[in-house]
Amino acid sequence: MTRDELKILIDTTAGRIPAELVIKNASVVDVYGGTVIKGDIAIVDGRIAGVGSYTGIVEHDADGKFAAPGFIDSHIHIESSHVTPEEIGRLLVPRGGTTIIADPHEIANVKGLEAVEYMINAANETVLDIKYMLPSCVPATTFEHAGAAISASDMKEAFKDRQLLGLAEFMDFPGVAFATDSALDRLIVAHEAGVHIDGHSPGLSGLSLNAYSAAGISTDHECTTVEGMHERISRGMYILMRQGSACHDLEILLTGVTPENISRCLLCSDDRQPKTIFEHGHLDDHLRICVRHGIDPIAAIGMATRNAAACFGLSDRGAIAPGLRADIVLLDDLSDFNVRQVYIKGTLVANDGKYLPPVTRYDSSAMESSFHVKDFSEKKLKLNLKSNHVHVIDILPGGVATGKGTATVTLDDNCDFVYDNKVDIVKLAVVERHQNTGNVAVALLRGYGIKAGAIALSVAHDSHNIITTGTSDNDITFAVESLISQGGGVVLAKDGAVVESMPLPIGGIMSAQSGEWVDKKLSDIHDVAHNELGIDKNVDPLMTLSFMALPVIPELKLTDMGLFDVTTFSFTTLEV
Amino acid sequence: MTRDELKILIDTTAGRIPAELVIKNASVVDVYGGTVIKGDIAIVDGRIAGVGSYTGIVEHDADGKFAAPGFIDSHIHIESSHVTPEEIGRLLVPRGGTTIIADPHEIANVKGLEAVEYMINAANETVLDIKYMLPSCVPATTFEHAGAAISASDMKEAFKDRQLLGLAEFMDFPGVAFATDSALDRLIVAHEAGVHIDGHSPGLSGLSLNAYSAAGISTDHECTTVEGMHERISRGMYILMRQGSACHDLEILLTGVTPENISRCLLCSDDRQPKTIFEHGHLDDHLRICVRHGIDPIAAIGMATRNAAACFGLSDRGAIAPGLRADIVLLDDLSDFNVRQVYIKGTLVANDGKYLPPVTRYDSSAMESSFHVKDFSEKKLKLNLKSNHVHVIDILPGGVATGKGTATVTLDDNCDFVYDNKVDIVKLAVVERHQNTGNVAVALLRGYGIKAGAIALSVAHDSHNIITTGTSDNDITFAVESLISQGGGVVLAKDGAVVESMPLPIGGIMSAQSGEWVDKKLSDIHDVAHNELGIDKNVDPLMTLSFMALPVIPELKLTDMGLFDVTTFSFTTLEV
Repeated sequence: MTRDELKILIDTTAGRIPAELVIKNASVVDVYGGTVIKGDIAIVDGRIAGVGSYTGIVEHDADGKFAAPGFIDSHIHIESSHVTPEEIGRLLVPRGGTTIIADPHEIANVKGLEAVEYMINAANETVLDIKYMLPSCVPATTFEHAGAAISASDMKEAFKDRQLLGLAEFMDFPGVAFATDSALDRLIVAHEAGVHIDGHSPGLSGLSLNAYSAAGISTDHECTTVEGMHERISRGMYILMRQGSACHDLEILLTGVTPENISRCLLCSDDRQPKTIFEHGHLDDHLRICVRHGIDPIAAIGMATRNAAACFGLSDRGAIAPGLRADIVLLDDLSDFNVRQVYIKGTLVANDGKYLPPVTRYDSSAMESSFHVKDFSEKKLKLNLKSNHVHVIDILPGGVATGKGTATVTLDDNCDFVYDNKVDIVKLAVVERHQNTGNVAVALLRGYGIKAGAIALSVAHDSHNIITTGTSDNDITFAVESLISQGGGVVLAKDGAVVESMPLPIGGIMSAQSGEWVDKKLSDIHDVAHNELGIDKNVDPLMTLSFMALPVIPELKLTDMGLFDVTTFSFTTLEV
Repeated sequence: MTRDELKILIDTTAGRIPAELVIKNASVVDVYGGTVIKGDIAIVDGRIAGVGSYTGIVEHDADGKFAAPGFIDSHIHIESSHVTPEEIGRLLVPRGGTTIIADPHEIANVKGLEAVEYMINAANETVLDIKYMLPSCVPATTFEHAGAAISASDMKEAFKDRQLLGLAEFMDFPGVAFATDSALDRLIVAHEAGVHIDGHSPGLSGLSLNAYSAAGISTDHECTTVEGMHERISRGMYILMRQGSACHDLEILLTGVTPENISRCLLCSDDRQPKTIFEHGHLDDHLRICVRHGIDPIAAIGMATRNAAACFGLSDRGAIAPGLRADIVLLDDLSDFNVRQVYIKGTLVANDGKYLPPVTRYDSSAMESSFHVKDFSEKKLKLNLKSNHVHVIDILPGGVATGKGTATVTLDDNCDFVYDNKVDIVKLAVVERHQNTGNVAVALLRGYGIKAGAIALSVAHDSHNIITTGTSDNDITFAVESLISQGGGVVLAKDGAVVESMPLPIGGIMSAQSGEWVDKKLSDIHDVAHNELGIDKNVDPLMTLSFMALPVIPELKLTDMGLFDVTTFSFTTLEV
């Protein structure tokens, strides 16, 4: 703010000059005092000048509607919506989202810091304020190959040059707890840069959790139990209560919210697909759930606004108060949280669900061409098992965490697994696609339900290699080859033909199309997946598969290097 | 923190190496969760490693005592205790104070930035962590002469070079509300330095308060009503609830604390004399008052710890949690808050009321010799009134704010005021002492009660000119001359003799003696003031007088330049 801007702000606030814009007759949600104040909101230069009685050059009558601060999503991966930053703005802003804290680690695993740069540039094309965290764990672990690696020295450079808010979710929680060199190198870079560090510590407790907190990691969005939540809060961490497309932790965690600890609780999406946004909304959905579970509506809004601002040091927003950014959401009431109008920096940017600014796109061509697969062929899918008593990856409800199961399976003469259509166990393969390593790892998956054909995706957290499963090696091979030809995305194959597909040209994980297009495509894919491939209707055919390669969520996962036991943080064998 | 320190911290936290010190068997106050956790506190390198079950190279058994985070006084003027920073550490630490946010504006008004430097250096001699704010208003107004002026460009330099936490209480609230050049210049320096700005806005409300908040001023410690408190909180400000020697606002403000707004409430002293510290304590006293008024004890401790840390961006303290400074207070219970042991950065620094470190002193000689009074003589006290219907400064209960009263007085042949021993109205004079201006301003004071002799002080907020009152010009003159000879402090005179005195050689406002010495001296002075000079026993003879020259607290005050109406922020006449 310049001296002239400060003078204009004060003169406007004091009522000596008319405001640029006044939102008249609002019921202003006061998240600091927990009250509602009837009055006008004066705005100048994108900032709130004051709440009171004001006149403006332009006046909008709020007609008594509730005015809340703009909602802040405290943790989201834009890439998981399969749309670009420009498009996520178009989708979230009409739902009241005005700021998101985004971790671009999906695309960074494909294209490294160049991708972070792309995401920052693309974000400039939307009015949604996208604050990026620098991905901390690219690759997520040393037990897989990704398209890029971001080293501690890369991070040091990145914090110098870029507008990055902090270090993104530190998934290498065993590395922190054991103070490995790699973890220390990265942590110290963040400490020296004086930035916030986000956490990711599913299931961590006791002394290991103490260590994680002592390292300066101040949030967790992977907390799924009240006990874990309370332990984290007393260790000084903020809880980012998640309600995404894949994970629904909010209702459980709300039972652990108390008047004493609520200021340490925030709301986040983590992953939120267009379908979820269209059907349920964004943080407006979180707020409805909060209120339905007995949280005072103003306190709930506080979690989505001031608490997030406090946690991330965003001192310029988080409330409707003089001097803060004029990010304002007008709501019909404080129970349905139906978003009517949204203002960002004092400009009306959404009206009755419609995003108003022109939609422009940043050039994403540098993010294409991300398939470098060496010598893939059907024979790479063959197993040579020493025993028919094997480990299987058991899909669990939710589709993100898995169980380390065992089963007795049929083997052929070459000791390869034989698919039995009466048993819900199939081959799962991860095909490395970034570095021409030629790596293909194969394991067994139970509970996916597929009964015909195969499916292949280039969306496989977090390294985004190709993940694929099917009832025959032939179908799997065809699906993988088709996916590579298509340049990434999703392919469903059956009887030697592609029966449905969705190209995702940006890094193999994102589309340049609209959220509506993505939603329609995903819906078609789900239909075909359930109805033609027979995938279990209780399983999300894409999301579930995309998490099977993520070696930081327990219990058993598959990377391009082999079967990985997250509990012991080491590879294990298929044979029991 | 270096990489090696981080590794040792994590290894200690995870229990792989023994802690340097473990406080065993504590009832740990968890200010984030609002709970008490039984366990050990492990400490290494001055930081809390963890709370849980730990072994240490050294172990102290807390025997079940409550362990609270070290208390943070969010606003104090050390000079008002009339002792040095080293000594305030000795006095406050045994009461649980581990951090104070100090505004050295009293001494800065005498000696400018050189004095701030002295205060910083002196603070290094105590374990109490003294965080200094840079005085924002030296002189407090343009309506008086102080010993120094700190300009906006001085501030810009100071923020570059010094470890200053922010800009201290911005007393020029009319300047802010009217966006004067001088206020804008100083505000913008703080904005550009990205520092916190403390407020001082007695009685401000409505659009002017909006303007004050819009300017980026984020606290107020001058708030004395629940209405004002709630208005400030909804405008985004923190309330520093004051319980000092002069002002007792805490009990009233506590009635306005709610579960919704408590995180915006802090505790402060502003001014705290040794007598108050010895008789009542420090923030332990505030905590007792809080609990007596129905505040949950953990929430009360939260106001004195985590809220203060949050408000001032002290992310390294404010709770007992891994990685934070090991500033810990052991208490017998959570009702009497009897402080047993105090640890600062993991070292035991106070035990059962005794300060343990050696007391060393920084050289204060540069702060002496601060009297530059030109041509003072009795004739400068003469009035030449145009009317016998005059304004009088009415002392109000509390002794800080005053009323703008009127009275009809007797005049002599030269139209000078004649003292009438049946009427409690006397001459009040301010004698400029810094710049040889020769300024002497005279007004009339009602309610002080003095019946014989005179009193003169060189402690007169904030410019610290000489303030004096008495029943005759002769007595006043003698007191002022004696005070100058003494090099500052306090002089009580009667019948041509000094009947009691207290030298304050450091800037004329502070002693290099102990708190006990100051307390005894002040007590003797009070006795003589009440018993020999007849000053009203309901009036604090020194503190009340010292506030009569402070032109930023309403309603009527006297500076060396004349009678000042704080309500209109302009000079006024003695005659009605």
